[in-house]
Amino acid sequence: MESQTKQQGDQLRAKVPALRAETPGCAEVVHFNHAGASLVPQQVLDTVVGHLQREALIGAYEAADEAEQRLARVRGSVARLLNGKPEEVAVVENATRGWDMAFYSLPLQAGDRVLTSMSEYCSNAIAFLQLAQRGVSIEVVPNDDSGQLSVEALAGMIDKKVRLVAVSHMPTNGGLVQPAAAIGKVCREAKVLYLLDACQTAGQVPLDVHAIGCDMLSATSRKYLRGPRGAGFLWVRGDLANKLEPPFLDVHAARWVEADRYEIVPGSARFENWESNIAATLGMGAAVDLALDLGLEAIWEVVQERAEALRTALLTIPGVQVHDLGAVRGGIVSFTLLGWSAEEVQHALHQDSINVTASTPYSARWDMEARGLRGVVRSSVHYLTTDEEIERMRSRVAQLAGR
Amino acid sequence: MESQTKQQGDQLRAKVPALRAETPGCAEVVHFNHAGASLVPQQVLDTVVGHLQREALIGAYEAADEAEQRLARVRGSVARLLNGKPEEVAVVENATRGWDMAFYSLPLQAGDRVLTSMSEYCSNAIAFLQLAQRGVSIEVVPNDDSGQLSVEALAGMIDKKVRLVAVSHMPTNGGLVQPAAAIGKVCREAKVLYLLDACQTAGQVPLDVHAIGCDMLSATSRKYLRGPRGAGFLWVRGDLANKLEPPFLDVHAARWVEADRYEIVPGSARFENWESNIAATLGMGAAVDLALDLGLEAIWEVVQERAEALRTALLTIPGVQVHDLGAVRGGIVSFTLLGWSAEEVQHALHQDSINVTASTPYSARWDMEARGLRGVVRSSVHYLTTDEEIERMRSRVAQLAGR
Repeated sequence: MESQTKQQGDQLRAKVPALRAETPGCAEVVHFNHAGASLVPQQVLDTVVGHLQREALIGAYEAADEAEQRLARVRGSVARLLNGKPEEVAVVENATRGWDMAFYSLPLQAGDRVLTSMSEYCSNAIAFLQLAQRGVSIEVVPNDDSGQLSVEALAGMIDKKVRLVAVSHMPTNGGLVQPAAAIGKVCREAKVLYLLDACQTAGQVPLDVHAIGCDMLSATSRKYLRGPRGAGFLWVRGDLANKLEPPFLDVHAARWVEADRYEIVPGSARFENWESNIAATLGMGAAVDLALDLGLEAIWEVVQERAEALRTALLTIPGVQVHDLGAVRGGIVSFTLLGWSAEEVQHALHQDSINVTASTPYSARWDMEARGLRGVVRSSVHYLTTDEEIERMRSRVAQLAGR
Repeated sequence: MESQTKQQGDQLRAKVPALRAETPGCAEVVHFNHAGASLVPQQVLDTVVGHLQREALIGAYEAADEAEQRLARVRGSVARLLNGKPEEVAVVENATRGWDMAFYSLPLQAGDRVLTSMSEYCSNAIAFLQLAQRGVSIEVVPNDDSGQLSVEALAGMIDKKVRLVAVSHMPTNGGLVQPAAAIGKVCREAKVLYLLDACQTAGQVPLDVHAIGCDMLSATSRKYLRGPRGAGFLWVRGDLANKLEPPFLDVHAARWVEADRYEIVPGSARFENWESNIAATLGMGAAVDLALDLGLEAIWEVVQERAEALRTALLTIPGVQVHDLGAVRGGIVSFTLLGWSAEEVQHALHQDSINVTASTPYSARWDMEARGLRGVVRSSVHYLTTDEEIERMRSRVAQLAGR
């Protein structure tokens, strides 16, 4: 099995020169910001631009009618990515709004408990704290020794008042991959709803909602899937979706059947809204199809290897500390450089056309405060990342370290 | 004053050939669907596509950083369009979500009354009915003899329990323009909040939030403003915005300042979310700038005249009935053809590259049922509409009438 994965990875490695040639940004920048927004392939750009041009030529509603079947297939592509069903997929404007539509549709009340992780993403944490003001108890499961969520601690915290476990699969500020399936097992046994934020893992890590055991999963197009901005998706288990009343309803999510009555549509379409960005949705579909075509097992193998290669290279530099936690680590490499703030490193690298971002406590406060981190440089690889790019990053950071 | 407006209109009329030449769709289709989505000008398409290409080349976050000042100016452009302040403007993904963010942030409780119009748009009505299930009383103000909301009836319905007046400025299914400023006067005197859905009027009718007297106003990019899909805006009066807690909060709307505390940002940015479609937002800005440049008084004069010309032409055909209500009528021309359903007319016209839509009771049930209408053909003009296009429409509908 392991050698088979290695073999799949090698097949993908062999395609990387061609994949880079089909990615306009590869010739322009050294991109270590795939966890922010990756570089879109030409075929995704062409899909988006082609639809926009068609809208301009024949009208945007008319172009949507023309693209109806292709649009419907986007849902199918996302379903294949997750091993879910097309009717369980909502195509939404971004991962945050997808996550919101799931989270805020849950009937959480004062006294209910919600369990989450140390490394939770800021936007989710802010939503939790909004419900905390209404009396919902938000509790952070401690990490185990590896720095991932302690599944044992989670199991110990479960009781009848726990209504939801909501976890970011991979944090915004480091390479940690949470033990999603082990968490799912605990949730299933306890019959507690499980919302997985797969914003950073979709397109990077193989995702199988049944193997994971989650009830809801949200993700974005623009990160590891290499799709456009302005598109994302939410998957909700079919029998659950039909029980949830979304916090917002419109003419797409419900039908106005009588003067004083509406009917919510079946399935996850209830989490969508009528006016969507069709071009971005089609672009996301093309990006998902590319990922499926390359194979998620292969992508995951290569991304993990590339990230380890970057960590190894950075660790040769005096003053560099790598901060990624966890037993399993993915494409995000987080580091600090002695004497430099994360923003200063980001700015210096940008002068050399190297794209990274800086993560601050505002983005993952529970984690950053617990570790006493004021900021980390977030450098994220993809299967596109070459040895030359890693060497250019190493060499530039080494220069900064030497100043 | 009237002759001055006529003069402004004539100046715009003189520019129409050039404006059509700069609009790719004008050579391809006979577009009577500006109320669905108008035809974008080349400069708007170039703005959107140019940013998407830049994202592909240097990375999407990096392209957003580069476009930061242009992005900030979009808010300013929208503020000028409405005579509001930039910090009162939220740039959102579409009009429905903008309206939702305002409506669902209001602390409406069982027993509160919400007043709306007969001709309300389906998505708003469905949201009202959702709150009705929580005990909020949704009451429809009757029309006056012209078919517009009766301002006298509205004034008579106001009492201490009325918390909100929410009205669509122009319905989805007809040319009626509601007396927005007269409604605003009643609301101001009664100190009742007033939410105006300007989805169909932004870019068509001059909008001055102070003259109208509304507290909240939402609109989209893609209709009369001629911007791209996937962008819209919400304006909320500054002192009101700061009192409202949005139904969804994320890292852009709030800052995670301590482990258990967030602070909502000041102004209308609280209704936005972090992940937006930058390209579409920039495109909306270009579209608003074009409308401001041409002048809303001029646009409104020409659109009204073009719509009356289409109504006059259609009324020469036996079996055609025009259904637009109101004392003031704008760019939407709604009609029926004896012996034909609205969908059949839409389909037949589409065969001849004439774009219209069909409005059904699902889109405006209170109004359609009251008038016994099963469907109307919605044909909507813009300043781009030529005499030749009107004649082509008239001639084709006359052919259908003769079958």
